[in-house]
Amino acid sequence: VTLHLVLAESALELVPQEIRNTPAVRSDSRRRGTDPSEIILDRSLHHSSMPRLSHGERRGRPDLVHEAVLSATGTPLFMNGKLKVYVHTNQNLVLQIEEKTRIPKSYNRFRGLAEQLLTERPKSGLVKVYDADITKLVKKVIGADRVVGMSTQGAPTDLGELSKELTATRRPCVLVGGFPRGHFDPAVLRMTDRLVRISPMPLEAHVVVARVVYEVEKATNRIND
Amino acid sequence: VTLHLVLAESALELVPQEIRNTPAVRSDSRRRGTDPSEIILDRSLHHSSMPRLSHGERRGRPDLVHEAVLSATGTPLFMNGKLKVYVHTNQNLVLQIEEKTRIPKSYNRFRGLAEQLLTERPKSGLVKVYDADITKLVKKVIGADRVVGMSTQGAPTDLGELSKELTATRRPCVLVGGFPRGHFDPAVLRMTDRLVRISPMPLEAHVVVARVVYEVEKATNRIND
Repeated sequence: VTLHLVLAESALELVPQEIRNTPAVRSDSRRRGTDPSEIILDRSLHHSSMPRLSHGERRGRPDLVHEAVLSATGTPLFMNGKLKVYVHTNQNLVLQIEEKTRIPKSYNRFRGLAEQLLTERPKSGLVKVYDADITKLVKKVIGADRVVGMSTQGAPTDLGELSKELTATRRPCVLVGGFPRGHFDPAVLRMTDRLVRISPMPLEAHVVVARVVYEVEKATNRIND
Repeated sequence: VTLHLVLAESALELVPQEIRNTPAVRSDSRRRGTDPSEIILDRSLHHSSMPRLSHGERRGRPDLVHEAVLSATGTPLFMNGKLKVYVHTNQNLVLQIEEKTRIPKSYNRFRGLAEQLLTERPKSGLVKVYDADITKLVKKVIGADRVVGMSTQGAPTDLGELSKELTATRRPCVLVGGFPRGHFDPAVLRMTDRLVRISPMPLEAHVVVARVVYEVEKATNRIND
């Protein structure tokens, strides 16, 4: 069994047209010698420009995406080729990370990679980039037969039990929100067979990812024993 | 029970005297407008200057430390005040993170915080900094009654079982290496009651931290149920 892990509606995008000419973006662009159209939107740098963006509070968190991706790709499940990772963005782009790909651990290098990927949109390679909304990704690209969404709005669920169920299916898919606040879009909710909550406290994406992958890894090892 | 988690011999330090005058460090210093003596050593920037450092392959990985700290501080165990986190550095400094402290998720902000902490060494506050080798930290500061080191050189051990044992003691302490390669120093090994390996594959510090904290959290919840 391979687990298909989707970071859904992730706060990862290039600086949108409407704020490319603002002081915070222009000074970042000048400092790095990069055109504003090829810079990743980053709240820690562009905060003052972001109030004018719609749904701005959910956008511009490449740090959150980086951390969640590393939480997945640092695991034995990933290194053994039993985990596929997809970063679905709020712009309906997908960054598909091939098995065993090494993602830069340095944030600044990750940012550089993300800028290159979103600008060039490579059709092949260790990370390929393509247009897909969550429906297309889950149904067509992954062909999932079981889709679980992780959400504070879900039913309290034991993650160990859930992981056993997931590994009993052929193409299990888990959706974790790649945004800093708020809930899944209705289009995402429609894709889930089940919406679960794994902690009484709200958890950051990287914590959810680490726990899901670990429990699925344990369930997989139990099967192989 | 509070778990005391030590990131031991962490690759976090200010640029050492002997390479402050090298081109990579000087250009970083110029770009950021910061004196070389107040910049964190970072392999992703200072790689070309680092071969002349002794044990250079184990140094200059603030990204690794950042990620491991976030893996700990993002958990319910930490947010509930049941986890204390100590970053012990390869220079025998300790950064003690008070309960519920929010560590910056942006790497560049974390770097700025670490530079400030290592330069000013505050004696109080949300993160205090003091001199302590691993013996002093574990014996005197923490007063641990049970010390487990996580290492690929350890005995293969089920982490769930280990966590139950840990939560049965008064002041359990777990040591995770905060360096990118190699093994614990003998001084660290002498402090451990038990050296364990939790995966057939070598794991990055943030993955070990995420798994230990999660299992201890589960063991704690079981006690409270």
